[in-house]
This record gives sequence, structure tokens and C-alpha cells, in this order.
Amino acid sequence: MFENKNIRVVDCTIRDGGLINKWKFSNAMVRKVFLALDAAGVDYMEIGYRASEKLFPPKEFGPWRFTKDEVVREIVGDTKTRMKLGVMIDIDRVDPDDLLPASESPLSFVRVATYLKDINKAVALANLVNEKGYESFINIMAISTVNTFDLEEGLRQIENETNVTAVSVVDSNGSLYPHDIENLVSVYKKELKTKKTGFHAHNNMQLAFANSIQALHAGSSFCDVTVNGIGRGAGNCPLELLIACLRDPKYKLEPVLQVMQDVFVDLQKEIEWGYIIPYMITGILNEHPRVAIAVRNTDKKDLYADFYRQLTTPECFDNK
Amino acid sequence: MFENKNIRVVDCTIRDGGLINKWKFSNAMVRKVFLALDAAGVDYMEIGYRASEKLFPPKEFGPWRFTKDEVVREIVGDTKTRMKLGVMIDIDRVDPDDLLPASESPLSFVRVATYLKDINKAVALANLVNEKGYESFINIMAISTVNTFDLEEGLRQIENETNVTAVSVVDSNGSLYPHDIENLVSVYKKELKTKKTGFHAHNNMQLAFANSIQALHAGSSFCDVTVNGIGRGAGNCPLELLIACLRDPKYKLEPVLQVMQDVFVDLQKEIEWGYIIPYMITGILNEHPRVAIAVRNTDKKDLYADFYRQLTTPECFDNK
Repeated sequence: MFENKNIRVVDCTIRDGGLINKWKFSNAMVRKVFLALDAAGVDYMEIGYRASEKLFPPKEFGPWRFTKDEVVREIVGDTKTRMKLGVMIDIDRVDPDDLLPASESPLSFVRVATYLKDINKAVALANLVNEKGYESFINIMAISTVNTFDLEEGLRQIENETNVTAVSVVDSNGSLYPHDIENLVSVYKKELKTKKTGFHAHNNMQLAFANSIQALHAGSSFCDVTVNGIGRGAGNCPLELLIACLRDPKYKLEPVLQVMQDVFVDLQKEIEWGYIIPYMITGILNEHPRVAIAVRNTDKKDLYADFYRQLTTPECFDNK
Repeated sequence: MFENKNIRVVDCTIRDGGLINKWKFSNAMVRKVFLALDAAGVDYMEIGYRASEKLFPPKEFGPWRFTKDEVVREIVGDTKTRMKLGVMIDIDRVDPDDLLPASESPLSFVRVATYLKDINKAVALANLVNEKGYESFINIMAISTVNTFDLEEGLRQIENETNVTAVSVVDSNGSLYPHDIENLVSVYKKELKTKKTGFHAHNNMQLAFANSIQALHAGSSFCDVTVNGIGRGAGNCPLELLIACLRDPKYKLEPVLQVMQDVFVDLQKEIEWGYIIPYMITGILNEHPRVAIAVRNTDKKDLYADFYRQLTTPECFDNK
């Protein structure tokens, strides 16, 4: 189905899913997900964020906000896996000392999440990560809010000044259509002559999977997914759909269905994600989902038309 | 966004949603949906099936299995609408006497649903519908299971022997990807020189909306949708997403959000539809959803991996 025979599946189940519950997943749960992803043939598992405990009070957050090396070792145990394990780091939320040299860590890759405006910091952080021996990536968030000239300039800077493996298009607001993805991936491919392109979708408009397919058709190599599409707000591209579509014998669907049956059916009774109308509304308006997340925690959570009117009346925009 | 400026939105909320609950929607509910669709600028409302009471015991089914003219008149009341109202009929499930001349009916269009193998009957029925004065359409179901040569032959027959306005691609199994839709619409457009093309999606793989966009980009004119994607199994392309995407000022999103807020939030607590894994599984296997519908009515409804193994073990195929 895809010309590119070097597609890499990057699972963010715990890292992105943790945005819903402050990363309070039990070790037992994460171990089950790890084993399922390994059995499914997933290439990269982003197991959490790495953040500084100086900035985030450990009591408020679960372990996958920090994803310490020793916790990762507990999850892996004595399982031999060919899956690469890594973390995401945010600009200004991590201390260089939080990362040991890769040779002393169970992790092999680090992804730097950045807004385009912070590209200088992202480049410096990606280089630091590289110097410590990790495979590095940059994810440019909120891509639906940047102009193409700025984007081209930022991509050229990454191309010239870093050794990242890939740079990902991140549709943070879930507001992009397949033809937008095609256009963005072509910009990335044009500027990134020695780096690969990745894609991270959100499902606000039920387009996470379709946009991921489009990104792969357009020549992306890395595709971010999560089990059952778990993720903040509308969630992500579901791993199960991507695996079924790739039709590559190295990927197995059954372990993903098994962990959904064993873990995610109950999880979905506790925490919420998916195609829920307030997230659709922020998606079509190209807004960050935070206002929708806020309304879902009130008794007005299902007053869709009221919410839409609130976001689209000029008074509301004035006060934003 | 679309080159085609003559897109027509066809709502099937009551007709297709009724497949979940045997069309037992109250008149009050249908009236609310009718008013919302009218305010939203929907072009065609398929308000139910027309079926013969000789074949379907009226006590077992709600009114939208039969959609009698007098019930439609109750729904419309004295509302002036420019929205066209119509019904779907199935081969061998309707009697010619069930359709009065269009001049005596509140309905103006009839869509004939058919499998490709029944194309002779569909052509005859479409011509009967036309002779009675209705605008006619043919929907070819289960399109993912037919071969292209047979399809071309069937389309040529419709082109030469009927006066239908359009013929729709119907992805009954929800197993098609955007590039399949592009290919199918191009076949339809090649053979249907004097007729338009339509598309009816199912959401088993979260592709209903994306495939609808693809169909419109490929030159389809008619697009089937339902409020909140309601429909049997995984459901349909959501009206709210199509309206937001079309960006045509003749369509209004707010009335759709309002009726979702007023009616569909509660409805979804009673009846089930959407991206639910057993439907995903029948989708990726290109199977009719009936086995998934059956398992959703048992206590094994969330045993996804078991269900997948059942459908993919040779023994199971032997007994099918």
C-alpha cells in the first residue's frame, strides 16, 4: 500500500495517554503495554516524558512524567526486546543533568517537543541529546498555526545544525485535513535533505488515521500512534488501525487487541478520550483543546451548541 | 476546498440510525431532527425506509421502517422547507402499491438500495419510481466485495436503462481506504456519463469522514451523512464534520450541534454506535458487521482478541 518500505511505528501510549491522568499508570499496566507493543513489532516506544523533578512536584504526577531510568528497567525486566525505548522532553522543562549518557541508560532515543518559535532552544537540546549518545528527534507542535516561510526557515536550521533522525509534523489542534498533511510533508521533505519526516495526528475531526495514511503516502517515515488511540482530548492515531493497514508481516495485530481487551476496556471507564464534540469544535476552529478539556470537567460538558457559541462570539475572543 | 460547487448533502440519520433500534424513534425526536437538518441547510433528508407491511410485521418495527406518507406529513407540519424528503427502498421488500404517485406524496425522492447481483431488479425498481414521478437514485451496496469488470457492466446498465440522478458507492463493510474510494469514484465517473456519483461511508476504520472527503475530491456530488455519525455498527460520516469542512455559507453547523445537545447525548446512552473494536475487526477483514453486532449483544462484547481469533481461524471460516 505504501511505496516507502522503511516505515517506523512510534508508540506514545503511555507518554501521550498520560496527559489525561497526570501519568498515573501503574507499573503493571505499563509492563502489559510494553509486552504488547514488543509482540506487535512496534519499532519505537516512547514510554513517557523525561522532566525535571525540580519543576514538577513528584507527588502530583505519576512516574511517566519523569520516566527515570530505574523505572524503565523495572518495566523491561529481563525481556529481550528489539523495540527502541525513549522519552519526550519539553523545552525548559528538563535539566541536562536529568539525562545520563545513553550508554548508562535503558533508553536509546529522545524526542524534543517544541513550538516553532523555540526552535533555537530545540536545536540546542537535540544536540545535547545527541552528544549524550541518544538518537534524537524534533517534534514541531501546533503546526496548524505557523506560516510556511517561518516553517521552511526552522526546518533549514534543523537540517543544517542538528543530527536528528527525523522531524515530525504535529497537528496539536487536530485541525488539519489530508490535503494539508500532504502539503506540510512536502515542505518538510523539501527542506530536510538528510533527515526523515514523521507525523503525529490528533483525532478531533476523526482524521487521525486518515491523515497518518496521507503522511505516509506523501513520504513520511515515522508515524506516531497509541493503543486504541488513547491521548489527551480526542486522542491519537490508533495503533491497531495502522498495523492493519500496513499489512507488513513484521507487525502483529493480535497482541494489540489482547492488551485492549485486558487493559483498555476498563481504562476507558475511568478516563475519557476520543471523538467527543467539544474537541471536534476546537479542532474545526484550530484552537488548542484546553478549553474543551476544561468544559468536559464541568456539568456543561455536553452543551455542545452553547460551547460553540461561546467560542465563536466576538466577546469571547476579546477575552481570550 | 472542493472544485465541485454542486455538492449535495444527503442526511440518513433516521433511516440508517433506525437500523440500530428497529426504527423506533418517536415522532417528537424525528421532528427535532427534521427541523435541525432544515436549519442546517441539508439538501436531502432520507427520513426512513419504505417497506411493505405485508413483509414486516408493523408491531415489531417503528414507523420509519415504513415511513408512510401520512407520518411524514405529521413530521413536516406546516413548516416550509426547501429540503427534499425521501425514502430508501430495498429490492424485494417493497410493493409497487406502497408508493403513491409523487404528486400525492410529501416525498420527492426514492433511493433504491441494491447489491450488484440484483442490478436488473434495481433498474426496474428505479424506473418504476421514476414513472411515479419521484427523483430516483441507486445505491450499490457492499462495493468492497465486487470485481471491477462486473461493476463497470452494472454501471453501464444503469447509465443506459435508467433516469436516476446519481449512483452511490456504498462501503457497507467499512473496509475501504481513501485510495480505494478514489479508484471506485473514477470507475463510476467513467461509466456514468449522464448521471452523478454519490458516496455512503461506514466508520469501522475511522475513515468515514476521510473517505467522504476523498469521494468529493474525486468528483462525487452526493454525500451521505448522519447527525453524530449515528448508524448501525460503526456508524456513518458525521454531518457536523462535513458541514464544517465544506465551508459553504449555505450550511450551518449550529443547528446540528444543538440537536446533538438536545437529543443525541441522551440517545447515545440508550443505543450504541461508533468506533468500537469488533466493528473495526469486521472492517479490516472486509466482512459484513453482522457478526460484530451479534457479539456486542453478548457478555463477550469486549473480548476483542478472542473475537478476532474466532474470525481468522480456518475452522471458523469453514463453518461460516
